[in-house]
Amino acid sequence: MANIINFLPKETAIIALILLSLRLMLRIGIVGLGYWGPNLVRNFNNLTDAKVTCVADFDEKRLARIKSNYPAIETYASAEEIISRTDVDAVVLATPIKTHYELAKKALENNKHVLVEKPLATSNAEVTELIEIAERMGKVLMVDHTFLYTGAVRKIRGLMDEGEIGELQYFDSTRVNLGLFNPNWSVIWDLAVHDLSIFDYITAGKKVAGVSATGISHTKMPIEDIAYITLYFNDNTIAHITSSWISPVKIRKTLIGGSKKMVIYDDVEPTEKIKIYDSGFSVSTPEEMHQWLIDYRFGDIYIPKLEQTEALLGVAKDFTKAIMEGTRPVSDHQSGLHVVTILEAAQKSMLGKGKLIEI
Amino acid sequence: MANIINFLPKETAIIALILLSLRLMLRIGIVGLGYWGPNLVRNFNNLTDAKVTCVADFDEKRLARIKSNYPAIETYASAEEIISRTDVDAVVLATPIKTHYELAKKALENNKHVLVEKPLATSNAEVTELIEIAERMGKVLMVDHTFLYTGAVRKIRGLMDEGEIGELQYFDSTRVNLGLFNPNWSVIWDLAVHDLSIFDYITAGKKVAGVSATGISHTKMPIEDIAYITLYFNDNTIAHITSSWISPVKIRKTLIGGSKKMVIYDDVEPTEKIKIYDSGFSVSTPEEMHQWLIDYRFGDIYIPKLEQTEALLGVAKDFTKAIMEGTRPVSDHQSGLHVVTILEAAQKSMLGKGKLIEI
Amino acid sequence: MANIINFLPKETAIIALILLSLRLMLRIGIVGLGYWGPNLVRNFNNLTDAKVTCVADFDEKRLARIKSNYPAIETYASAEEIISRTDVDAVVLATPIKTHYELAKKALENNKHVLVEKPLATSNAEVTELIEIAERMGKVLMVDHTFLYTGAVRKIRGLMDEGEIGELQYFDSTRVNLGLFNPNWSVIWDLAVHDLSIFDYITAGKKVAGVSATGISHTKMPIEDIAYITLYFNDNTIAHITSSWISPVKIRKTLIGGSKKMVIYDDVEPTEKIKIYDSGFSVSTPEEMHQWLIDYRFGDIYIPKLEQTEALLGVAKDFTKAIMEGTRPVSDHQSGLHVVTILEAAQKSMLGKGKLIEI
Amino acid sequence: MANIINFLPKETAIIALILLSLRLMLRIGIVGLGYWGPNLVRNFNNLTDAKVTCVADFDEKRLARIKSNYPAIETYASAEEIISRTDVDAVVLATPIKTHYELAKKALENNKHVLVEKPLATSNAEVTELIEIAERMGKVLMVDHTFLYTGAVRKIRGLMDEGEIGELQYFDSTRVNLGLFNPNWSVIWDLAVHDLSIFDYITAGKKVAGVSATGISHTKMPIEDIAYITLYFNDNTIAHITSSWISPVKIRKTLIGGSKKMVIYDDVEPTEKIKIYDSGFSVSTPEEMHQWLIDYRFGDIYIPKLEQTEALLGVAKDFTKAIMEGTRPVSDHQSGLHVVTILEAAQKSMLGKGKLIEI
Repeated sequence: MANIINFLPKETAIIALILLSLRLMLRIGIVGLGYWGPNLVRNFNNLTDAKVTCVADFDEKRLARIKSNYPAIETYASAEEIISRTDVDAVVLATPIKTHYELAKKALENNKHVLVEKPLATSNAEVTELIEIAERMGKVLMVDHTFLYTGAVRKIRGLMDEGEIGELQYFDSTRVNLGLFNPNWSVIWDLAVHDLSIFDYITAGKKVAGVSATGISHTKMPIEDIAYITLYFNDNTIAHITSSWISPVKIRKTLIGGSKKMVIYDDVEPTEKIKIYDSGFSVSTPEEMHQWLIDYRFGDIYIPKLEQTEALLGVAKDFTKAIMEGTRPVSDHQSGLHVVTILEAAQKSMLGKGKLIEI
Repeated sequence: MANIINFLPKETAIIALILLSLRLMLRIGIVGLGYWGPNLVRNFNNLTDAKVTCVADFDEKRLARIKSNYPAIETYASAEEIISRTDVDAVVLATPIKTHYELAKKALENNKHVLVEKPLATSNAEVTELIEIAERMGKVLMVDHTFLYTGAVRKIRGLMDEGEIGELQYFDSTRVNLGLFNPNWSVIWDLAVHDLSIFDYITAGKKVAGVSATGISHTKMPIEDIAYITLYFNDNTIAHITSSWISPVKIRKTLIGGSKKMVIYDDVEPTEKIKIYDSGFSVSTPEEMHQWLIDYRFGDIYIPKLEQTEALLGVAKDFTKAIMEGTRPVSDHQSGLHVVTILEAAQKSMLGKGKLIEI
Repeated sequence: MANIINFLPKETAIIALILLSLRLMLRIGIVGLGYWGPNLVRNFNNLTDAKVTCVADFDEKRLARIKSNYPAIETYASAEEIISRTDVDAVVLATPIKTHYELAKKALENNKHVLVEKPLATSNAEVTELIEIAERMGKVLMVDHTFLYTGAVRKIRGLMDEGEIGELQYFDSTRVNLGLFNPNWSVIWDLAVHDLSIFDYITAGKKVAGVSATGISHTKMPIEDIAYITLYFNDNTIAHITSSWISPVKIRKTLIGGSKKMVIYDDVEPTEKIKIYDSGFSVSTPEEMHQWLIDYRFGDIYIPKLEQTEALLGVAKDFTKAIMEGTRPVSDHQSGLHVVTILEAAQKSMLGKGKLIEI
Repeated sequence: MANIINFLPKETAIIALILLSLRLMLRIGIVGLGYWGPNLVRNFNNLTDAKVTCVADFDEKRLARIKSNYPAIETYASAEEIISRTDVDAVVLATPIKTHYELAKKALENNKHVLVEKPLATSNAEVTELIEIAERMGKVLMVDHTFLYTGAVRKIRGLMDEGEIGELQYFDSTRVNLGLFNPNWSVIWDLAVHDLSIFDYITAGKKVAGVSATGISHTKMPIEDIAYITLYFNDNTIAHITSSWISPVKIRKTLIGGSKKMVIYDDVEPTEKIKIYDSGFSVSTPEEMHQWLIDYRFGDIYIPKLEQTEALLGVAKDFTKAIMEGTRPVSDHQSGLHVVTILEAAQKSMLGKGKLIEI
């Protein structure tokens, strides 16, 4: 862009530069300073074309901590104070799930671009309405599915796109650990949301036909702390997700089986997160039952080097770019819609103890 | 026993010894010499109070191989030839699943004790009838759930019995690898049968209330090669089993969560198969929603040394003991009945894509 | 201490409190803001009874970064400016190894307590002189052997002290990775220094009798990037240390064999850093050569939960405590002396390609 | 060869086939039926062109066990009885180390080809004499360095030969476990012998310039149970070997660093024995000391699929082929000479506590 400016008359160039500088420095307000909020502040603050101008939280101590680290940021006790400002271009919501719909709606209607922590909202209906408002207002509505910005998940998507994996046969993901019970939402809204967003991304939005889910609560609250989700499709792919808050060890392991290769993505591994197996099987059609044959293939294993940049910085950049250049973010509202739709169906299926919910 | 004989009159003692030796040397016939059969021959042959007198298989090469290693064993081309002999006390069936019911029935009715490879038969009805026949004929009917005779599983049962684990909260077992498609039966009859038998054993037969299962076939046969089973109970325990024939790596991992401790049993580990975690959580009843509190406990980990004897030798000994001393084997027909009942329900549930089947 | 003050007359109490607050708030100057310096600033700043009042570095950017985070800290371009100040109680040196002796000497002579990054200096002679000066001036001289303040190393020391391990038989430590060549000093001054300090600590300063070391340089500089050190003692203990800057993977693994138990300390493990093996062997004296017998014992394994506090905070606290309460720090100048003496001998032995250097 | 026979006149062909069958069926005698001997019997018996005709051991039970499994094999109480027979073509010695020289000498002088368990003998002088006798008698003298016949070691040799690794920078091998004390020879003759033979093979006999070794005995016998060997060369390669009989865990791990790539060979891993790291460093010559620069490279990792055949079968085949076709075996007497020469030097160096022994 600097090149173009060189060819403009001097006065025009100056005005263009001023406009660019004004436009380029996106003014961000961040709502919610719990666990994730300060990370958002830090990453948005590291961008060259955006700055965090204000934050909101009901907790004064959290506000004070931000103020001491970033004296230029203004602090507010409520989201509404940020949403109603005209000198804020975009709002980032890192608040509890149940507030997402209402705050995002208000922000969009107040002419703000909106980035929402995962999950985007609590139901297909809520997300659908938010998307309509965003489109009507011409604003970016994006969800923070952070894993889509990791080197590991991007690598898998690349392998899928290039046909390295072949036809997808199965996706089996386990995400368990001890801790972080959420008193409002079952474990799938906290953990399976990651696996579902990864699945949706690496398959470029493969359409889910039905959901069967099971789970249990070990407290007196009707909130499942262990849950299992199976996704059915219109072909013979299957996806399964295990979520638990009461495992003695932390496991983040995803097996992806294709007709050509298989991948194991182990996010707990510090350096060898992705292993690509040149293994598989092919079926020869039997003429007689007992001649039915399978050929197995056990081959080399390949561990690619992955990009190491912080995923959340990628989220911040993608949101900013979507606003400024009109691009579609990787973790866009369609991703948010797909994930919430499945979570809602899974929750319903768990009530029916595995009952199939068609989508 | 030898001591008692010392006090008998000489003639009586001799007769007693003859009777004992006759009785003690159990004559075993083994049917089916595929993958598992030769292991059964070897282990039963190592016993002091049993000997394999005959084997049957339709494949002449297999018979020849046994003959060359054990010249004293007689070989037959059909199971019937063994079953109909009067000088055989017990029959071991290592034949395809679909033959179990018929062969076991014949053998029992021909006055033989019967040990059947897992699974015992293909339905609750079949197993129930076999049990009735066994009881009517006064014969031992046992199933070879081999894992119940491993040091690892026995250790877990011990921990459960002694109250070390506390109330069972969940059981989550994964058994996957590449290979060994069976053209007749889905993966759950091949792999989940192990997890179900382990579960049944370590919980001393905890009653299952319902089953929800999902799965998929990647061949043209209606035989699932990946499957997921959830078991519901009359309390808030949950059990889940993952089975797959198309994983690039072999995984045999069982997580067992209790109110006091948690256990991870990893059968792929050569020496550290069982880890006992002094970890857990306890819930304090909340007065207000946002005060709802969980206390997490992360403590020491303990890896017990395990017995190393071959499990199948334990099976052979337990079968022999059950016949000769009238004891109840660990892997008894009730264990077989429970496992088959769940497998049958799971197969039905998979047809209904997760539909709950009550038991 | 607050309790005592309650019993003093009011005026005395106030004066006492003022004195206490003056005395308690130790004024720290930190020299060297490379890799480790900012961590020292952060940890000393978190103490309640010390504050970092000034820092020095020749690099303006580094100074500016500290200033922006800690506006109250004064910044200087040279160590001398800090050392010569009278309102500084203690100086922390995080400068290159070759400067340690001179700067520490100046600081001690200027009436400062001194904490030096490992290694304390470059020779036994230098350290001995520094200790003499410190004792003459009545000042604390301490070295930052950080690992002595980790939960893992403290646990091992505890096991040794309580006799759990029995007589030490061997200590075998490997510390290798790819990177961080130092153009001035061989790898042992960078990596083996940790293993030696850990050995010295867990054995409570076991006297080394001799050193044999080997190594090689893969650059044109006479600086070994791979080195192996063997320590001999006056009994049949042996210690061995492997150091390398050119390993494709990071390994930090220490095996400790005792007559009762053995320990493996793997610092790369996130949660299971220490495994205690109830394994060992005992020798029965042979009457005849071929009857010479060893009994092996393979027993349980135990993984204790470890303290998780940041080690460097422990260093900062221990240094402060030593100054204010006159206690002896864990990582004291004797620890520094022992380690430097062995490093110097090892360097000499490497020149002689393994030649034994007695100590 | 069968093809050639097709073109011969019928009578000639028959005679040729008879001669071939006579010649091809090499008659092997195996001496020593301890741990390794029965494995040798089994593998030589599986060959198509050799058969084990007799075995010798002083222990009657061991002989009886062989007899019961292989009724055709003749058994003898002493090695001499086998060596003196004229109907034995080759002798395999699996006896204690101290007997190797004398038995091998006798066998060669009695016109037998000889395969000796590692190590070939106890000194450079002994091996040199055996080689002279073998050459004079025109007989094959081979040592059983089993690892040279594994898929893993052959793969590494292939990578070295093809230049994939680049110039060798270091070789660092650890072989430790609990157990198997040998009352006659230090641990290096039992364990380091493997590492040395692997090193010699993958470097195609790289000439060693000097040896420095350290070690200790924890028994009253002057037999080191822990030992460390460093090899120096005429370039800046270094090799180091760790051997121990008193480690609580079994470790078999070899790091091989080259100027292009690095390899980790972990023999304890069931399936991923070899990892090839596209990692390394290159040095740019400095103009000034502080500008001295190293470029690090962290790249992909590749795990090749390896051949799975039993190594000892490869040994048996290679010995037979060497006899019948006059080829040079992989594990030839030069390999045996190199390894024994270094072991002898290392033993001497240990006496001098690391003293360099030039070779």
